[in-house]
Amino acid sequence: MNRKLRMGMVGGGAGAFIGAVHRIAALMDNQIELVCGCFSSHPENSIASGKSYFLPENRIYTSYADMFEQEAKLPAGDRMDFVVIVTPNHLHFDPAMQALEHGFHVVLDKPVTFTLDEALQLKKKLDETGLLLALTHTYSGYPAVKEAKARVARGDFGNIRRIYVEYPQGWLSSKQEDARNKQAEWRTDPKRSGKAGCIGDIGTHAHHLAEYISGLKTTEICAELNTFVPGRLLDDDGAALLRFDNGAKGVLMASQIAAGEENNVKIRVYGEKGGLEWQQHEPNTLWIKWADRPTEMVRVGTGQMGAWAQHNTRTPGGHPEGYLEAFANIYRNFALTLQANLKDEQPTPEMLDFPGIEDGIRGMRFIDVMVEAGYNDSVKWVKFEP
Amino acid sequence: MNRKLRMGMVGGGAGAFIGAVHRIAALMDNQIELVCGCFSSHPENSIASGKSYFLPENRIYTSYADMFEQEAKLPAGDRMDFVVIVTPNHLHFDPAMQALEHGFHVVLDKPVTFTLDEALQLKKKLDETGLLLALTHTYSGYPAVKEAKARVARGDFGNIRRIYVEYPQGWLSSKQEDARNKQAEWRTDPKRSGKAGCIGDIGTHAHHLAEYISGLKTTEICAELNTFVPGRLLDDDGAALLRFDNGAKGVLMASQIAAGEENNVKIRVYGEKGGLEWQQHEPNTLWIKWADRPTEMVRVGTGQMGAWAQHNTRTPGGHPEGYLEAFANIYRNFALTLQANLKDEQPTPEMLDFPGIEDGIRGMRFIDVMVEAGYNDSVKWVKFEP
Amino acid sequence: MNRKLRMGMVGGGAGAFIGAVHRIAALMDNQIELVCGCFSSHPENSIASGKSYFLPENRIYTSYADMFEQEAKLPAGDRMDFVVIVTPNHLHFDPAMQALEHGFHVVLDKPVTFTLDEALQLKKKLDETGLLLALTHTYSGYPAVKEAKARVARGDFGNIRRIYVEYPQGWLSSKQEDARNKQAEWRTDPKRSGKAGCIGDIGTHAHHLAEYISGLKTTEICAELNTFVPGRLLDDDGAALLRFDNGAKGVLMASQIAAGEENNVKIRVYGEKGGLEWQQHEPNTLWIKWADRPTEMVRVGTGQMGAWAQHNTRTPGGHPEGYLEAFANIYRNFALTLQANLKDEQPTPEMLDFPGIEDGIRGMRFIDVMVEAGYNDSVKWVKFEP
Amino acid sequence: MNRKLRMGMVGGGAGAFIGAVHRIAALMDNQIELVCGCFSSHPENSIASGKSYFLPENRIYTSYADMFEQEAKLPAGDRMDFVVIVTPNHLHFDPAMQALEHGFHVVLDKPVTFTLDEALQLKKKLDETGLLLALTHTYSGYPAVKEAKARVARGDFGNIRRIYVEYPQGWLSSKQEDARNKQAEWRTDPKRSGKAGCIGDIGTHAHHLAEYISGLKTTEICAELNTFVPGRLLDDDGAALLRFDNGAKGVLMASQIAAGEENNVKIRVYGEKGGLEWQQHEPNTLWIKWADRPTEMVRVGTGQMGAWAQHNTRTPGGHPEGYLEAFANIYRNFALTLQANLKDEQPTPEMLDFPGIEDGIRGMRFIDVMVEAGYNDSVKWVKFEP
Repeated sequence: MNRKLRMGMVGGGAGAFIGAVHRIAALMDNQIELVCGCFSSHPENSIASGKSYFLPENRIYTSYADMFEQEAKLPAGDRMDFVVIVTPNHLHFDPAMQALEHGFHVVLDKPVTFTLDEALQLKKKLDETGLLLALTHTYSGYPAVKEAKARVARGDFGNIRRIYVEYPQGWLSSKQEDARNKQAEWRTDPKRSGKAGCIGDIGTHAHHLAEYISGLKTTEICAELNTFVPGRLLDDDGAALLRFDNGAKGVLMASQIAAGEENNVKIRVYGEKGGLEWQQHEPNTLWIKWADRPTEMVRVGTGQMGAWAQHNTRTPGGHPEGYLEAFANIYRNFALTLQANLKDEQPTPEMLDFPGIEDGIRGMRFIDVMVEAGYNDSVKWVKFEP
Repeated sequence: MNRKLRMGMVGGGAGAFIGAVHRIAALMDNQIELVCGCFSSHPENSIASGKSYFLPENRIYTSYADMFEQEAKLPAGDRMDFVVIVTPNHLHFDPAMQALEHGFHVVLDKPVTFTLDEALQLKKKLDETGLLLALTHTYSGYPAVKEAKARVARGDFGNIRRIYVEYPQGWLSSKQEDARNKQAEWRTDPKRSGKAGCIGDIGTHAHHLAEYISGLKTTEICAELNTFVPGRLLDDDGAALLRFDNGAKGVLMASQIAAGEENNVKIRVYGEKGGLEWQQHEPNTLWIKWADRPTEMVRVGTGQMGAWAQHNTRTPGGHPEGYLEAFANIYRNFALTLQANLKDEQPTPEMLDFPGIEDGIRGMRFIDVMVEAGYNDSVKWVKFEP
Repeated sequence: MNRKLRMGMVGGGAGAFIGAVHRIAALMDNQIELVCGCFSSHPENSIASGKSYFLPENRIYTSYADMFEQEAKLPAGDRMDFVVIVTPNHLHFDPAMQALEHGFHVVLDKPVTFTLDEALQLKKKLDETGLLLALTHTYSGYPAVKEAKARVARGDFGNIRRIYVEYPQGWLSSKQEDARNKQAEWRTDPKRSGKAGCIGDIGTHAHHLAEYISGLKTTEICAELNTFVPGRLLDDDGAALLRFDNGAKGVLMASQIAAGEENNVKIRVYGEKGGLEWQQHEPNTLWIKWADRPTEMVRVGTGQMGAWAQHNTRTPGGHPEGYLEAFANIYRNFALTLQANLKDEQPTPEMLDFPGIEDGIRGMRFIDVMVEAGYNDSVKWVKFEP
Repeated sequence: MNRKLRMGMVGGGAGAFIGAVHRIAALMDNQIELVCGCFSSHPENSIASGKSYFLPENRIYTSYADMFEQEAKLPAGDRMDFVVIVTPNHLHFDPAMQALEHGFHVVLDKPVTFTLDEALQLKKKLDETGLLLALTHTYSGYPAVKEAKARVARGDFGNIRRIYVEYPQGWLSSKQEDARNKQAEWRTDPKRSGKAGCIGDIGTHAHHLAEYISGLKTTEICAELNTFVPGRLLDDDGAALLRFDNGAKGVLMASQIAAGEENNVKIRVYGEKGGLEWQQHEPNTLWIKWADRPTEMVRVGTGQMGAWAQHNTRTPGGHPEGYLEAFANIYRNFALTLQANLKDEQPTPEMLDFPGIEDGIRGMRFIDVMVEAGYNDSVKWVKFEP
């Protein structure tokens, strides 16, 4: 086999934010082509969108059920290999399950599903079918984040003691859901977003980043969730104290009412001998701190970073890579793994390094625990199981 | 009266860190002269130190009790006006009380005393005598911090919702108290430091800064205190969720095991319309953030800051002022107030803006609450009274 | 017509730095597909590269002359629309001219040709044929740079007085051309790079950026070129004083021996009322400075930037875009213009905003002037004509 | 002898910017006391100022000639040791020469005199009398700058090749000299400032910093001076290419019309193996760059800096020191040297590290060369002699 992988899409009509991100990320590395899609629940929107993506009319669908069915009937040389689902959270599970049932691999945005139970069902189906699922926890796609993980893993800092992770945003400081802001509408709507707002939308990212870099697992959480904007139906802010399985302690902060902030994801991890700091605002630097010598500015694209980071970098140092490249790293590793599978080759560990259903399940548990802990003034610590 | 104020000193022998800071801060503005001191409990050290500070031998004392007694007998035109006490925490109360009893004003380092009860006794004595006490919560002396307070107070950001305040240090990542580090020895010793280590030493600074800038009062705290370095006798790390009296929520982080960090005090405050950020690392910038327009870099020493900040600034913009100037602002305002009192004039509000016994009492309560909450896994929220 | 544009490639075999950048930039926006190429002068390399890019064998060529000839014979619905040439400087002109002669549009890296005369010949041919040429002066593709240009143009800062532009690199601090560094080999070789080394490679970028943002034209240059590494055949460093056509003055600094620097392109422009600063290291911020109020941090992806920048941005604020997106903006605008032309529509000014042959000619003149001025100790100012 | 040094002052009446800076810097380290002064040419101003500095009336003078005469007659135990002269440039020479003639050491602001010839006369007198002169080239007083000098001197970076030094200000973007701005009035007046404006005021600082850190001497300058604000009588901007005695090349930029800039002094020095960067905006960090490993953030107050820097630091790392401390370092070293001289001890090299008459003479030559080169379009390089 020597061909690009063929991608279908559910959601992501013209004008949608995250759909466009997925297409760019999928296409940039010349490993994947967009072959079909059902881009909207409005048929005319789906068709117009598909045309603007240069798809032939017969590969533009107006129902995803139809798409899976039709694509499954196409000859192996034509039909899509995988589908990316970029709908609001309540519409993740059904198309994902249908895709798996029709034999298609899946790429999903986080949180993986609407409920933890759905996530567990997906896992069961994945185990049965042997199909792949990639979850776009974007921040783990940054090369500097991968370098951070590698350095913690190889013990540079000794045992990890303290983690601060934060994700401040300000875009929901006022009631955007009443101001025709589509992103705000569904993200603050319990029927579409799930039981959590801010914590599900961005708190999960922060939590995933902390576990990804540290290699630790959260065991207990003490939290408070807040809704600052009057009339809002879900939390728009939250903070938590975390306990990790090695005895490390964490603080997690997520807010959508930190007026004036964009997506200032930042993480600091400290061990016995030193620590690290990374911030999305300038994502190509990993700050390495030492108890006994100067802080180092370790740069993406240079020999200062190891093989894992280099595998996820496209340009030499000094050519800033950003969010779209981090996103594309998830697609690229997913695609390389899929290509290897198709060729009956063993994917390398670097290829296999993309978030999947296990990350999704932990994310759903995180939401459950945060909601349980976040509104309860009498219970201090809620266990994160299993 | 047209003369400098006369300062005596308890502690601060040659080589002591904070004693030197106090002398520089006191002298820099030509408002105060050092006239006497008992610089060490070792007589020869006290004498050698006093000589190196160019004091006449008859004003160098070997016991502070003796100093208060002798100075009180000097003619009004010679004797000291106030004493600064720069000994470890367990040695604050006795000299402070003796000074007040002999009619001397007092400058104290924080935490104001060893126990809350001592602080309350000092307050009682201050109320009785009408003497002044200044407490060196240095961070509130920075002009950008004063500007931050002024802007919050005048309502620029609307109602305050969210505060993040942090004070990460790394110098106690290893067991410095066993390595002949004098600063580490007393600060980690419950007999000299008090019931808290990190939280008393730097957590109090962070807490004071949050209340100072926001103008809010903490009402409840949920906390965890940690001791990461084996064998250490006090906390070396802690984090807390805070509730404020207007409904705002806070996160407070303080650590002495954040390996590689210096004194990276940072505060962020967000209201309905915008927010602010200040960091000691580069203290002459106040970042002002807005929900709907670009972040502004407001600079000390320029017309961009108001009268309150300008009163506490010595040079035009672009001449970085630092920690010693912030420290000196406390001394200068204390001195200006004292001078006004001596002349029977009314000090201006700017002059009166230095931390005092009320701040000290809140600091002691903060320590009490943090210690109560920080080790208790079953009680989530501890009230901050009154 | 509703189809992607079809791109051929000359150079850019597997492993080549800038070839990969061009492919990513061309593909990311789903406007262009790679359909053919002659990727190397070594036939086996070209074929292996083409296969790794998933091209069918009959569209992988082993000579570019052959490629132009064969592609020109293909049906209109199959043959490439344009070719990108990513060979060393001495191999720009011949394939570009051949492409134009066969009716193909061209994308070229800078400097556009080996000599000014070649550039003028290309312009003549472009004028005759009406074909398009895009030149990848990448830095002008950044949205913050476009915002900078727009603000200068609308007069925000008043008349421009002073420009500082700099491009410090350190990668040629030692004699990399003797260390099997292919990038270093050809860039320091007068037979492949041209009459200038550093100044042709990166000085031209700095000069283009200054003229692009300011809208001014250089009229005179006073310069010095240096070769610091012994045995090197071309300049590896240079600096110049510039005079612009409105009376503004500039300083241009370019170096490849600034050890420890990556590609720290930075520009500052000052007018009567304020100024701006942009730096590639963190490219999503445009700093706007004012004589009489706080500096503003204007951010890509937000409403703080105008239509021109927004047209060149893919994600909302807080999702850092980088070098590859800036590069892709040149391709996207070139593609949109070409699509408009193919449909007999008028491209918008935003679409037409990509560097072309006029920029290339100014770049070649810049090299000529810098070399003339840079080694002459008796002539201070050399005119930049016309 | 065990006493503070006694300082007199010429100029520096209440409200003057640089006079206040000198007093703070002189007093902060408890080495110097202010004992007398002639603070203004207006007798009543001088008297009022002296009183506000808590001086006795008999030590407040209304003519500096009178002051030198009277002080010289006082008993050795009372009279001043040295005088600081903080008048505009045209009033440096006469009081300085009179002070020397009466046996007083001198502290002067830069530029040392109005003309080079005056500076040479001062040197002659200093040589004859053996008295000391300190010149407040403040930037060389920063500990990070001293560390930079030490690292270059010990060869960390190999032979130095390239220096960029810049001092952008914006405060003279408009015609402040017509807007009752006293600082602007005399600094733009050839009768008080000298033959240069911007270049004398701040260009000299940049030049001194470059030579101080690099240990190199300028041999030739190619320059252009500009006056951007209509009607201004002196240059308000300039730039120069520099050649140094080891073959290194420099660029010097100084401007007072860089609207929106404060005092953003910055220097970068690159050698064969690495380089350094320092910026006044955040003066406690020295960035150390390497051709082959991560950039290091070397911090003032920590063990990361050597003895020279530590001698000039008052607090541990993380307590930002600023402009006033850098200024005070000049006073402290001057005072320590003077104390050593008075005790017939040998001052240490660290004590002797303050700028003096030789720096002053080089500064005056720099002004001469810049003015000669800066307005001449036909001569490219002007020699810097001797």
